[in-house]
Order: sequence, then C-alpha cells, then structure tokens
Amino acid sequence: MKSSFKRYVIGKPLKSEALGEQKLSKTKALAILSSDALSSVAYGPEQILLVLMTVSTVAFWYSLPIAVGVVVLLIALILSYRQVIFAYPHGGGAYVVSRENLGVNAGLVAGGSLLVDYILTVAVSVSAGTDAITSAFPSLHAHNVAIAIFFVICLTLLNLRGVTESASILAYPVYLFVVVMLVLIGVGVYNVVTGQVPDTLHAPIGTPVTGISLFILLKAFASGSSALTGVEAISNAIPNFKDPAPKNASKTLLAMGGILAILFVGIVLLAYFYGIVPNSKETVVSQIAEASVGRNMFYYIIQGTTAMILVLAANTGYSAFPLLAVNLSKDGFIPRIFQVRGDRLGYSNGIVMLGIAAIMLIVLFDGATEHLIPLYAVGVFIPFTLAQVGMVRKWWYDKSDGWIGKLAINLLGAVISFIVAMMFLVTKLPQVWPVFIFVPLIILIFHRIKQHYQAVGEQLRLEKRELPVIEGNLFIIPVAGMTKVVENSLHYVKSLHVEKVVAFYVAFDQVEAKAFEEKWAKWQPDVRLVTYYSPYRSITQPLMKFIDKVEHQYDKSGYQVTVVIPQFLPKKGWHHMLHNQSSLLIRAALLFHKNVVIMTVPYHLQK
Amino acid sequence: MKSSFKRYVIGKPLKSEALGEQKLSKTKALAILSSDALSSVAYGPEQILLVLMTVSTVAFWYSLPIAVGVVVLLIALILSYRQVIFAYPHGGGAYVVSRENLGVNAGLVAGGSLLVDYILTVAVSVSAGTDAITSAFPSLHAHNVAIAIFFVICLTLLNLRGVTESASILAYPVYLFVVVMLVLIGVGVYNVVTGQVPDTLHAPIGTPVTGISLFILLKAFASGSSALTGVEAISNAIPNFKDPAPKNASKTLLAMGGILAILFVGIVLLAYFYGIVPNSKETVVSQIAEASVGRNMFYYIIQGTTAMILVLAANTGYSAFPLLAVNLSKDGFIPRIFQVRGDRLGYSNGIVMLGIAAIMLIVLFDGATEHLIPLYAVGVFIPFTLAQVGMVRKWWYDKSDGWIGKLAINLLGAVISFIVAMMFLVTKLPQVWPVFIFVPLIILIFHRIKQHYQAVGEQLRLEKRELPVIEGNLFIIPVAGMTKVVENSLHYVKSLHVEKVVAFYVAFDQVEAKAFEEKWAKWQPDVRLVTYYSPYRSITQPLMKFIDKVEHQYDKSGYQVTVVIPQFLPKKGWHHMLHNQSSLLIRAALLFHKNVVIMTVPYHLQK
Repeated sequence: MKSSFKRYVIGKPLKSEALGEQKLSKTKALAILSSDALSSVAYGPEQILLVLMTVSTVAFWYSLPIAVGVVVLLIALILSYRQVIFAYPHGGGAYVVSRENLGVNAGLVAGGSLLVDYILTVAVSVSAGTDAITSAFPSLHAHNVAIAIFFVICLTLLNLRGVTESASILAYPVYLFVVVMLVLIGVGVYNVVTGQVPDTLHAPIGTPVTGISLFILLKAFASGSSALTGVEAISNAIPNFKDPAPKNASKTLLAMGGILAILFVGIVLLAYFYGIVPNSKETVVSQIAEASVGRNMFYYIIQGTTAMILVLAANTGYSAFPLLAVNLSKDGFIPRIFQVRGDRLGYSNGIVMLGIAAIMLIVLFDGATEHLIPLYAVGVFIPFTLAQVGMVRKWWYDKSDGWIGKLAINLLGAVISFIVAMMFLVTKLPQVWPVFIFVPLIILIFHRIKQHYQAVGEQLRLEKRELPVIEGNLFIIPVAGMTKVVENSLHYVKSLHVEKVVAFYVAFDQVEAKAFEEKWAKWQPDVRLVTYYSPYRSITQPLMKFIDKVEHQYDKSGYQVTVVIPQFLPKKGWHHMLHNQSSLLIRAALLFHKNVVIMTVPYHLQK
Repeated sequence: MKSSFKRYVIGKPLKSEALGEQKLSKTKALAILSSDALSSVAYGPEQILLVLMTVSTVAFWYSLPIAVGVVVLLIALILSYRQVIFAYPHGGGAYVVSRENLGVNAGLVAGGSLLVDYILTVAVSVSAGTDAITSAFPSLHAHNVAIAIFFVICLTLLNLRGVTESASILAYPVYLFVVVMLVLIGVGVYNVVTGQVPDTLHAPIGTPVTGISLFILLKAFASGSSALTGVEAISNAIPNFKDPAPKNASKTLLAMGGILAILFVGIVLLAYFYGIVPNSKETVVSQIAEASVGRNMFYYIIQGTTAMILVLAANTGYSAFPLLAVNLSKDGFIPRIFQVRGDRLGYSNGIVMLGIAAIMLIVLFDGATEHLIPLYAVGVFIPFTLAQVGMVRKWWYDKSDGWIGKLAINLLGAVISFIVAMMFLVTKLPQVWPVFIFVPLIILIFHRIKQHYQAVGEQLRLEKRELPVIEGNLFIIPVAGMTKVVENSLHYVKSLHVEKVVAFYVAFDQVEAKAFEEKWAKWQPDVRLVTYYSPYRSITQPLMKFIDKVEHQYDKSGYQVTVVIPQFLPKKGWHHMLHNQSSLLIRAALLFHKNVVIMTVPYHLQK
C-alpha cells in the first residue's frame, strides 16, 4: 500500500535508459530556471526606489541610470556565465570554476554559499508568495506558515516526479507572467509616449537633488542588483539540458537575460513616469498596474501571476541545488547519498533535503523570511565574484583565441559583482554577519567529510598482504529456551560442520539455570551449553563477557568467533510489538563493539 | 556518556537479590498508596455541596447523612478489600478476583478499566495540582501543559529510581497534608463546640427542603463517592509490601480507611457548620480554612499541601499500574515487555508507558482533564462492583469458616458500588459514554494479543519430527566493489568450506558490468561472480530475484541459502551518516521476505 501511494504521488520508477527523455528543451528550461530571476522584477525596482526615497522623491529620476547600471551588470554576468557554460560544459557553475582556477577553498566558499543560498531561495520565495496570497485573503493570514510549508511540500513532490514533468506544469505560469508583464509595460509605455501621462507626476531627469551621495547611489544599485540572483542557476543545471547541452544552455541564458532586462527597465521606467512612491500597503507593480490599466480584470491577473511567480521562483532552487550537491558529493565534500538517482531519475535525496531545510527555515523564522533577503543576496554575489575572478585567471593562463575580449568581460563582471557584494556587506552588516560564521563552518565540515572519505578509501583499498589464516570457527548460539527456533538454528549450524559449537544461556535465577542445563543435556547432548547468571537481568552484558573470554582463550589458535542469533519472525507487522526485541539489541551491541561475525537464522511463523 | 547520565537520573542498577530491600514498610506504603484516596478530601465534599446547591443551600444539611453514607460505603469497601487481600495474597485486586470467580471476560473488564483508570489518575491529578499552583501564580497559567508534563516526567523518573526511594521522598508531603488537615479540623470543631460559630450560618438538621428528591440525593452521594477511587490500589500492590505482605497490606488499608473517614467527615461537618457555599473562585477547603484560622501563615500551608497532595495522588497510579500490567501480561493479554524488571527492579516499562500515556492525555486535552473525572469514577466503580460480586460468589461456593459474615460484607460492598456506578452512568452519560467504546475495544485487543501468544507458543513448541536434511550450503555474497571489506568476507566464508560460494554484483551500467567481471576474474578466480543489471537502480530487487532463482534451482537438492553481507563499520557515530545504509535495507528486506540465513561480516575501520 505504501508503495502504491508512493507511485501515485511520485510516479512509476523510470529505467536508467530513460535519462535522455528527462532532459529539458530550451523553452521548458527557461521556464523553470529563470523563474527566480524573473520574479525579482516584482521587487527589484521597488528596492531601488526605497533607497532613493530616504533622500527625497525628487531623487527618483536616478532610478533610470541605476537601472541602466543593473542592466550593464546583467549583461556582464550573462556574457560571463555564457563563457562559463562553454568552458565548463558539464555544469557546476561558480563551484567548479572557482575550484579549478582559484583552488579548492575558493571553490568551497562558492559552493557552500550557493548551497545555503538555494535553501534561502526556496524559503524566501515561498514565504513571499504566501504573503502575497494571504494579503489578498486576510483570513488566511494566521495560517501563513502552514500554507508556506504546503507549497514547499508541493514543490518537493513535483520535483521528485522529475524535471520534465515539473517543467511542463510550471512553464505555463512563468510564460503567463512574462506575457502579462510585457502587456503591462506595452500599455504603460504607449500611454507615456502618447502623452496621456502628465509630466507633473515626475521630476525631470537631471533635476539636482540635495543630499544625494555616491554611497546612496551604490546602495540603491546594490539593492536593485538583488534582482540578478537567479543568473547562476543555468550554469549549474547544464546536465539537465537536451543535447547539445552547452549550446542550449547558452541560448536559454541569453533569452533569460533579454527578457529580464526588458521587464526590469520597463518597470523602472513606468514607475518613474507615473511617479510611483513605494508604500507598505501596495507594491510598486500593483500601483503601476492600477495607474496604467485601472482596477479591472487585467489588474487582478497581474496580481495573481505575480504571486505565482514568487512561489515558483523557489523552483530554481530545486533545479540547481541537487546538481550542485552532486558536484560537491563527487568531490567527497558532502555525503555520497546526494549522488543517488531516485525512482524518477532526479537526485531525489538533494530534492528532499532542500525541502526539509527550507521548511525548517520557514518554521524557525515563523514565515517572516524577508529578514533573510540581504543574507541571500550577499551569498549570491560572493560566488558570482569568485567565478568571474576564476574565469579571468583562466583566460590569463590559457591565452586561447580572443582571450583578451573574454578576459575583459569576466573582469568587468568580477568588478561589478565585487562592488555589489561589498555594498551588501557594508550597508546590511546587521543582517549579513551570519555569513562570517556559516561559510567557515560549512567549509570546515566539507573538509572533515572529505578527510573521512579519504581515510575510508585508504583503509578499504586492496593491498598485497597475507590475511591471518583462520584455523577454525567457533559458533556461539545464544538461546532463550528450548524451542523450534533454537532447534532450527542448531540444525543449520550443524550442516556447516564447524569446529566448535557452543550454546549460551543467560539465567536470571540460579535454580532455573540448573534445571535448564539438565533439560538441555537430554535434548542436545552433542551441543555444549554454557550458562551465565545475570544479576542485573541483562542478556547482552553476559554474552559480551563470554565472547571476551572465548576470544582471549582462542586468541593464539587463530579461531574466528561467530554469533548465531535464532530469530523468529511473526506473520504480521503489529506482532513485533508483542515480542522483546532483544535479538536486535544483541546484534547492535555485537556489531559495534565486537569483531565477531553475526548470523541471523530466521524462523518464519505461519500464523 | 548516555549511560552515566542515566545512572545519575535513575541510579545504579540493582542486583536481582536486592529485591527484598525494595519492599515497602507500612508507613511508606501508606504514604504512596493512599495519596490518591486522601487527595479526594480536597474535592469530594465540594462535589456533594455542588449537587445539593442545585436545589437550595437549605439542603446543605443533607451533606451530613450523605457523608455518613459515603463512610458506610468506605467501610464496606475497606472490609471487602481486606478480605480480597487475604484471599489473594499475591495481589491483582479486582482483575484477579473477577477473573478467578466470574470468568476471564469479567476479569478483563475489571483489568482493562483499571489500566485506563490509572492513566486517568495520573493525568487528572497532575492537571488538578498544576491548576492549584497556577491559580496562585497566574503568570504561569499559559504554561499549564508544560508544567503538568514536567510533573509527569518527574514522577516517572522518581518511580524509575524505585519504589522505596520514591516512597521516602513522597512520604513527607503526604503525612504533612494529613497533619495539617487534622489540625484544621481540630481547630474548626473546637470553635463549633465552644459556640464560637453562630447558629445562623447554617440551616438546622432536618429542615424540610422543597424540591429535594431521592435522585438528587443519590447523585450527591455518587459525586461524594468519587473520593473513594483510590481504595483499590493497596490490593493491587501487595507484592510491594514487606513480609508478611498480606497482613501489612491489610493494616495499611485499615489505616488509610480510618484517616480518610476522619478527614472526609471532618471537612463535611465544618463546611456545614460554617455555612460554606461552593463558588468557582475559592475551593471549599480554602473557605473553611479562612473561616476557622483566618488568612495567616497556616492558611497558606493548607493551600500548599493541598496542591502537593493533588500532584502526588498521581503516584498511586505509578504504584498500581505496573503491577496490574504484570498480572495481565503474565496471563498473555498485554505485551510481555511489561514483565521485565528495570535496572532498579521496578517494572520500568509499565512506569514509562504510564508516563507517556498520561502526557498524551494532557496534551490532547490541553491540560483541561477535569472533563475526564466522571469517566475516571465510573471506570473505578465497575471493577469495584465486579470484585465484590466475585468475592460473594467465592464465599458462596467455598462455604469456609464464617462465610456468611464475609459474604454479607462483600454483598453490601457490591450493592453500593453498583448503585454508585449506575448513578455515574445515568447522570453523567455525556461524559461517560466513551467507556462503552473503550472497554469492549480494550477487551478485543487483549484477546487478540492472547491469541497471538498462544499461536506463537504452539508454533515454537518442540515436537517429535525429523527436520529436512540440509544437503549443502550455498553462500551468496553481495559485493559493491573490490575492497578489503569484501576480501575479509570472502576470507571468512572460505574458512567455512561450504559447498557453493557465489559473489553477486549489481551493475547500473552494462559497460561497467563487463569491466567489473574481468577484474573480478583476475582477483578471485575461485569465486564465481554473478552480475545483474539493475535498470531501476535498486540493489535489493535484483538480489531478491537472484535468490528466488537460486532457491528454485536448488529446491530439490536440499540446499540452504545464506546471504553474507560484508559491512564496514566506521569509527565514529556521525560517520554513519556519510555512508549509504544499503546493507541495512538489504538485511531488512531479506529478513522479512526470504527464508535465508543472513550473515554480517564486520570490518571495523581504525580511523
């Protein structure tokens, strides 16, 4: 029943050969990998205005050059990552690029930051989407956390069904959002161009503003750049693309950059021309929509698709996290389990872990994950910077065709990314300081795990050596009574014809011990019985003591000790509760503390 | 570390021989077994007045004859249970008496009701005590559930330390409560006798009351009888007494009856003379204390000891539940685990189960367990009635010396218990109906468990039969690679010289399979390797398929299949997280679904 439920939710298992069919076309890839980047259109322009507002609304015209700056950064990043894609066609993004060119620790800083970042993406996006929904239906507000968790679970299950299936479902809302935004911008720009928007709504470009400073402008720029956090995802997810993967990924990246640039500039432009002032009650996009199309049906479609894209932005995390985890896992920095493909060929352990971690964050912050946004932004621009620096170094040493142009692009990307990262560190230190604890901690853990795997590898590697000869075998059978279960085990052990067989009985009572020994001698005269008295009513302890004694005694003679556990298995699951699980306890104690072979001889009950 | 923490909380393990030292003296037994009964003094009289108040406060004089009725019932029950103690000196109370004289099902009704009842005792008493404390400190009110759970955990740990130790600690507050109550009654009665209490406070005895009916009087009587719920405990706990156990238990029972009668009548008397009217803000005992001694230091001592005795009343449940569980378990109606003595010789599984069940009830009812009181009372008077009827039947058939007198006492007890039980059923049906679901359900479960144990017993019992000869052994070693772990397992298996050894490898990739086979042939030319290709990336399924095939093939030739699992064990606990637990999964699948012997050959890592 459990398995048929799983099949219903996740789908039938897929053969490994079906991997090719699970690859993404460009349109599907664009939908699921760009949702994070595109969703930032819903809040990025607002972030710029919020910073400028601290000076004066007259300063709002600066949002236009800042938007140009963001687009320049976007172009630089897109071109840079395009070069990453072709240079590292097997994916891995910032982690692989940094590791290859700047050394393991730089790679781990990038990889660790991104790993945490994708978790933050999921938590933050889903919480933001939930807020958008519960703002529309205030009666749901008390259930914010529950709704957010529900969304995370839905996304997790959807992704467990596989990449293509989730892409097929999620593509519609993403493209709908793009179309709706383009229409909104089209209508708005038409209104502006045809002079339907009065000039009085906005200060003319170039109006002098008192109190404006480079610091404020850089801060506004950095805030606006939080819209670019999703750019990395495609370079991580190259293995999910249809062949030729790097080419398709690169085209998808360019398409995403183009759409993002148009939407971002469009929204900033309209906000300026309509003289929108951010307020806590209504988002900037909502105000623009109201000003350009009015509160009609289309307005609600805009609001609905915006809420949806915010939730779906989380899906970018689901696409990129498991693949990054695979890369880290292949290098031995995180557990191997992340390399295992699930029934539907996705890296299901990564997907599930991401879901659990996001739910934990949501619960921990009681759904108010907006405090995490600066942390999230700095966590993105650190690997951005590292990746670009790595690429610069690569071109410098490679000196391949056209290396100067390529180097210039990556250098520009590196410089801007670095400035943005620094701006976040400087202006948002109170929210950003955990980075200085988490990143070193994660790197430490990565190294500890790697060390362990290396130590295990060395210890398991075959080497030319002579194993000590096993001269004979001594089998110990702990018996709890004289039953068919014990009879069955003895029957089996006798068939192995080993050198020595000893039955071992623990008595809680001296008189009873005597009686048992007598009965045993009659029943199994050919199997020696050893009885220990257990004053503390433990079965495991006397057995361990006996094994110690035996091992000591046979130490010189090269005997191997094997413990045979007679175990009966009841027919139904609930029956297990009715029986002492002492065989399990004995097994665990022996496995971890003794160097003896453990054998379980089952006796299946029929009713 | 875990074990030293356990030692600190629970105490050093005790040898089985120390059982005698763990027995209770009469004074200690009185303290821990009578706390439930004595605590009812704090609410029993109030219950009577609450019912009478529904007619008129003039009717309060009826509380005196009703108190006499309660004392008569108390005397009948005490004498009846005294006879139970001597007739069944090994304990068991209502369960054993009913089972022996009225049949198994009557016994199970009594036993099942009491089992549930002791859980209710703990939940209800602890919640009541917590309420008393948080009424005094209203800021704690929001933490009611947490405080109640804390008390349950404390009582559970205290009881895990052993009966005598908990008795030593709990005896002080119980005796303090008795002394304080006696002083209160003494002062009050002195005031009344010396004429310091004006006659105007109360209607004279015998004042006619309009609207009073036999039904109301019986209802008031039943409510007052809820004070007698703790009487059963001593007869259940005989095995905990020092020798001669029945004699000591009987003396303790008489002492408890005497104290309970004096306190109960005293409080009812004072309530009448002082003209106390119950109200929701202040308890009757608190009003009496204020009227007779004023709001001084002593008043607060009364309040404090009352709160304490309410919490400690729960301890009666801890004394009686595990012993009743042992009796039911010995008869095979509940899991055997309840018969196991813990480190401190108490039946620790019963103690822990009781604690968990009580916490679950407290959480489920959000600490408001007062709704459970009627359920609890009816659950007590059903076994009371059954036990007395059983005793009547016993005397009737035994016709031993003085049987007529004994029969008369038990008959009186049976009749009154029955009336009280019926009154609860009739007047509190809306709260009491779950009894009609739970009791049959519990009895059904009891029988199912018994059936299972009987079936297992029959299947395990040795019989004269020839076991099918094992002609030879086939060992299958699933291998994941060519490592020292596998080498170690093969080395061991070779030392057993079994007929056939096959290594089994699951490949996820056809090319890789080929390469592995070639390498294997060079490494272990004498061990045949079978490779299965797993399109769904499962290891367990191909292995199961292979075992099926092998078993089918060797079915006729009498071969036994053994699966040898090579397992390496990392040095530190956290390392386990870093390795796929596939050997555990394989083992579980084989154990439950296949009739093969499972062998684990450990390879302990050194670092």
